[in-house]
Amino acid sequence: MIDSFTTTLSNFFFEYETPRQVLVRNKRVGVVCRLIQLGVLAYIVGWVFIYEKGYQTTDSAISSVLTKMKGVGYTKVNGSERVWDVADYVFPEQGDSSFVVMTNYIMTIGQKQGACPEVYSHRKKTGRCINETKTCEVLAWCPIENDTEIPNPPLLMSSENYTLFIKNSITFPEFNVYRSNLVEGVDNKYLKTCIYDKVKDPYCPIFRLGDIVNFSGFQFSQIAREGGTIGIIINWMCNLDRPIKYCRPQYQFYGLYRSVEEEETTKASPGYNFRYAKFYVEDGVEKRTLIKVYGIRIDIIVRGEARKFDIIPTMTAIGSGVGIFGVATVVCDLVLLYVLPKRALYKNMKFKYTTVQEEEPVLHTNSKERKETNPPKD
Amino acid sequence: MIDSFTTTLSNFFFEYETPRQVLVRNKRVGVVCRLIQLGVLAYIVGWVFIYEKGYQTTDSAISSVLTKMKGVGYTKVNGSERVWDVADYVFPEQGDSSFVVMTNYIMTIGQKQGACPEVYSHRKKTGRCINETKTCEVLAWCPIENDTEIPNPPLLMSSENYTLFIKNSITFPEFNVYRSNLVEGVDNKYLKTCIYDKVKDPYCPIFRLGDIVNFSGFQFSQIAREGGTIGIIINWMCNLDRPIKYCRPQYQFYGLYRSVEEEETTKASPGYNFRYAKFYVEDGVEKRTLIKVYGIRIDIIVRGEARKFDIIPTMTAIGSGVGIFGVATVVCDLVLLYVLPKRALYKNMKFKYTTVQEEEPVLHTNSKERKETNPPKD
Amino acid sequence: MIDSFTTTLSNFFFEYETPRQVLVRNKRVGVVCRLIQLGVLAYIVGWVFIYEKGYQTTDSAISSVLTKMKGVGYTKVNGSERVWDVADYVFPEQGDSSFVVMTNYIMTIGQKQGACPEVYSHRKKTGRCINETKTCEVLAWCPIENDTEIPNPPLLMSSENYTLFIKNSITFPEFNVYRSNLVEGVDNKYLKTCIYDKVKDPYCPIFRLGDIVNFSGFQFSQIAREGGTIGIIINWMCNLDRPIKYCRPQYQFYGLYRSVEEEETTKASPGYNFRYAKFYVEDGVEKRTLIKVYGIRIDIIVRGEARKFDIIPTMTAIGSGVGIFGVATVVCDLVLLYVLPKRALYKNMKFKYTTVQEEEPVLHTNSKERKETNPPKD
Repeated sequence: MIDSFTTTLSNFFFEYETPRQVLVRNKRVGVVCRLIQLGVLAYIVGWVFIYEKGYQTTDSAISSVLTKMKGVGYTKVNGSERVWDVADYVFPEQGDSSFVVMTNYIMTIGQKQGACPEVYSHRKKTGRCINETKTCEVLAWCPIENDTEIPNPPLLMSSENYTLFIKNSITFPEFNVYRSNLVEGVDNKYLKTCIYDKVKDPYCPIFRLGDIVNFSGFQFSQIAREGGTIGIIINWMCNLDRPIKYCRPQYQFYGLYRSVEEEETTKASPGYNFRYAKFYVEDGVEKRTLIKVYGIRIDIIVRGEARKFDIIPTMTAIGSGVGIFGVATVVCDLVLLYVLPKRALYKNMKFKYTTVQEEEPVLHTNSKERKETNPPKD
Repeated sequence: MIDSFTTTLSNFFFEYETPRQVLVRNKRVGVVCRLIQLGVLAYIVGWVFIYEKGYQTTDSAISSVLTKMKGVGYTKVNGSERVWDVADYVFPEQGDSSFVVMTNYIMTIGQKQGACPEVYSHRKKTGRCINETKTCEVLAWCPIENDTEIPNPPLLMSSENYTLFIKNSITFPEFNVYRSNLVEGVDNKYLKTCIYDKVKDPYCPIFRLGDIVNFSGFQFSQIAREGGTIGIIINWMCNLDRPIKYCRPQYQFYGLYRSVEEEETTKASPGYNFRYAKFYVEDGVEKRTLIKVYGIRIDIIVRGEARKFDIIPTMTAIGSGVGIFGVATVVCDLVLLYVLPKRALYKNMKFKYTTVQEEEPVLHTNSKERKETNPPKD
Repeated sequence: MIDSFTTTLSNFFFEYETPRQVLVRNKRVGVVCRLIQLGVLAYIVGWVFIYEKGYQTTDSAISSVLTKMKGVGYTKVNGSERVWDVADYVFPEQGDSSFVVMTNYIMTIGQKQGACPEVYSHRKKTGRCINETKTCEVLAWCPIENDTEIPNPPLLMSSENYTLFIKNSITFPEFNVYRSNLVEGVDNKYLKTCIYDKVKDPYCPIFRLGDIVNFSGFQFSQIAREGGTIGIIINWMCNLDRPIKYCRPQYQFYGLYRSVEEEETTKASPGYNFRYAKFYVEDGVEKRTLIKVYGIRIDIIVRGEARKFDIIPTMTAIGSGVGIFGVATVVCDLVLLYVLPKRALYKNMKFKYTTVQEEEPVLHTNSKERKETNPPKD
C-alpha cells in the first residue's frame, strides 16, 4: 500500500506532461494564425498592461476639504453705502466643501409677526380684505417680501474679485499614502501672491471667483444676478509606482444644472437662491431681517484614485490573457479543420480515434493509427 | 548567423502548431463531458454576459444636490398665533443635501448669563443653595431650559404638507455623461403641478413631507413629536449602451436608526433633536432665545453607477471563461483516466512515454511507442 | 441533409476529445515543473482564495452620520465669567458629520457700519487719513477686529472634557444589509456611562474631545489655541459570509493638514479658523458681534465595504488561475525544448510535422513520422 503510494508520488514528481502538437507547415495557415496570436499578444501587452495598466490595483481616496473666502464687497442702495465681509456673504460660515457666496439679494428689513396684505396667495387668511389693492390680509411676517424684481445689475458685482482658498487632503488607506493639495513648491511665500491659472499656476490653491465662473462656462454678470451652481472637481489620479511628488491634484470646473438641453427646451428652475433671516428684538418685539440670497453655490467634489502594482490583477490579467490565446487557437483550428482544402489530412493528423461505436465516416480514419488502438468491443 | 535567424523567423511565421487530440468515442464519457462543457458555456454566455453584463465597464457618479423646502406652518401656543416660514424651520437655510425640517420645539425666550437654580446637575455651581426646591444655584444661561415634556401633539403638525424640491445632477466622468434629475418631460409646466408618486409621477422631483415620512415607514405624528432621520436615496443605474434618456433616477426612502432590533430590544437614542440659539441685545444685555428643535432630518444620498461596453472586461470575461473550459476538460480527463473501466486503454492513447528511469508500471507501457522513442540512457 | 446533421450532432455528443500528451520521465524537468505548478496552485488557493478572498464580491456602503456634542465651557475674560453651551460652541448646530467645536476666539463686540482707522490695508478708503497712527480711514464694520494676538492659553481649555456622540448607520444596498454603530451590547444603559477606549470600550460611540485630539497625534493645548482639523474614519469591513454581528465599526483618528513635511518645511497655513457674526439692532442701528473662531474641525468619514461569496468572482478567479497554469506549462516547455541536453528528442516527441515546404532543418526531422504524414505536395 505505502509502496504503491510512494511510487505514485515519485512518478508524479519525476514526470512532466506536455501536450503533443502537430506542427502544420502551411504558409497561409501559419501566417494567419501567427498574426492572430501576435494581435492577441499586442492587445494583452500593449492595451491591458501598458495603456490600461492592468497590473495595478486601485484604491479610492478618503478626503477632507476646507475652504476660505477672502475679499470685501460694497453696495450702494438708495444712497447708503454698505460693506460686506466674509461673515456677511458666505453661507455657511465655517468653511465647508459646499457653500454659497452671496452676489445679489433682496432684503426685507424689520419683519414682525402680524396681519398684512398678501402678495402671494398661500398664506393663512385673517378674513379681512382690502378693496383698494384687491388683496386679502394674511397672517405672516410683515411687511411681506416683494421679490418680483431681481436687482439688475447685481448688487455685489464686486464679488468677482473675491478669492477662494481650498485646502484638500486625501488619504489612500490601502496604500497608506497621505497627500495635501499644498504640494511640493506651494509654500507660504508662494501662497501669498499666487492666483490659480490653468497654465502658469496649476497647483496654486487660490482661485478668483470671477475665474471660477468663467472656467465653468458661465457669464459672471448673469450668474451673479440669478445665482447658479458650480462644481469644482479636484481630480487626483495617482500612479503610486512613480514617485509620490507626481501625485498632484487637477482642478476642473463645471456649470451644474445648465446643460444645453435644459437651457434651450425646458428652462426648468434656473438660478440658485434661498432665504435666511437675521432675528433681533426691538422694543420687546421679535423682528427679523429676511434676506433672499442670490448667489454662487460652489460644490467641491474630490475624486481620488490611486493605482499601484499588485500581484493579483497582474496574474488575473496574464491568466485571462492566456485564455484569450486559447480562443485564438480555437479560431485557427476551425480554419484548419473546416476551411482549408487539405482539411481532411489535418484532421487526421490532429485526432486519434478510439473505439468506433457506430457507422464511421471513411474520410476520418487513419488505418495505421486504427490498428494500434482498436481494442475488442465492449 | 543572419541566415539562421531568418530561417527561424520564417519557420515561425509559416508554421502553426495545434495540439494533437484523442477523440474518445464513448457514449457515456461523451455525453457527460459535452454536458459539462455546455453548462460552462451557458454560464459564461447566459450569466456572465447577458445577466451580469460582464462585457461592460462601470463608472460611479459625481453628484451635486440642491434642495428647497416650501410651505408655511402655524402654531398657536398659549393663545398667540405664529407663522413659520422656510427661513424659520429649515436648518441649514442654504439648501444642502442634508438638512432638518423643524416639526416640534421647546423655546426658552430671553436667556441671559447669570446664576439660577439648576435643573440638571452638570453646571458650574455658584455655592448658594436654595432649600425650598432642594436645588443649588449654577452659572448658566438663565432661565434654564425645561425639556422634561415634549409638546404633544407636535406644534408644527402642519409641516406634513410642506413640499421638498430636489435638484440633483450627476456626471460620469469616465464616459463624459451629464444628467440631471429634471429628465425629459419634466419641464417648468409639469413642475408647477406635480407631486411625486411612486406609480403615477415617479420622475417628479417634488415631494410632500408627509409622503416621505410614510414611504420610509414612519408615522408622521410620532416622528414629528420626537424627531427622526430619513434617508432619501437617489439611485442612478444607467446602462449607457441604451439611449441616454433611459438613464433616469429612482427614489428610495429609508427610515434610519430604527431597525427592528433597535426598537424592540435596545431602544438606544431614538428621535432626533438639537439646540440652537437666536442671539440679540436688549437694553445693552446679550440675550438669546434657545430653541430645542425636534425635527425630521433628511439625508439625500446619491448612488450612481453607469455601465458601458468596454473591450477589457469583455476580453477578461472571455479569457477566464476559456480557463473554466479548461477546468471542465480536467474533470472529464479524471473520469476518463481513473474511473472508466477501460481507463488503461485511454491512458495509453493519451500519453506517450519517454525514457523510463526507474521501475516502470507494466500496465502503462505501450511496446510499440516505446521502441520509437527509447533513446540511450543518460 | 437531415441525416447528415443528425449524424454530426450525435457524433458531437457521443465523442469527447482530450489532448494527447507526452509524459516526460526526467527527474530534473519533472521536479522543476511540478514545483512551478504547485507554486501556482498554492498562489491561487492560498493567496487569491484564502488570503484575498477572491471568491467574494464587494459592495460599498451608503451611510448617514449624526453627531451630538455635550458639555459646558467656562471663560473668565477681564473678570467677567461666561458660560458656553452646545448652542454657543458648535457650528453648524444641527449635528452634521462635519462640524467645528470652538476652543478659542477673538470677539469684537458692537461693530457697526462706518468709517474707522484701518488695521489692514485692503478696505475701501474714505480719503481721510489720521496722522497720529499713520493709518487711513476705511469704510468697514467698526471697530475693526484686531486679531494680531491669539489668546494663550486658549479661552475654552475646558472643551477637553466635552463628549461627542456619533450615530452612524450604513446600508449595503446590494446585499440588503443594514447596520448601525449601536451594535449588539450597546444599549441605553451602557451608553449612559461608557467612554470610547481603544481596548476596553472599542464599540462605545461616545468620545471625549481630549481623547480624539490625542488619538490623532495632536497636543490639546496647541490645537485648542490655533485650531486644527481631525478626521475620524469609521471603518466597516464586513465579511457577510460570517454572522452579521461580526460586522462592527472600527474608529480611526487622523490629524489632517499636518504631515511631517508641512510642519518642517512649508508651514503653509496651519490651524483652522473662521469668522462669524451675531447680528442685532440697538437703538435702530444694525450692529454685529464678530467672532473669529479657532476650533477643532472634525470630519467624520465613513468607509464601508462588505464582501460576500458570489459565483462570478469565484469562476473568474478559477478561470484565470487555469490560465496561469497554462503559463507554467509554457515555461516548462521552453526549458524542455531549448535548454535540456536531450531537447532534440523531446521536440521530436512533442511535435508531429506536416508538409515540408522549404528547406528543412535536419535536426528536427523524424524519418518515421515523416513517412506517415507526408502527403503529395500541393
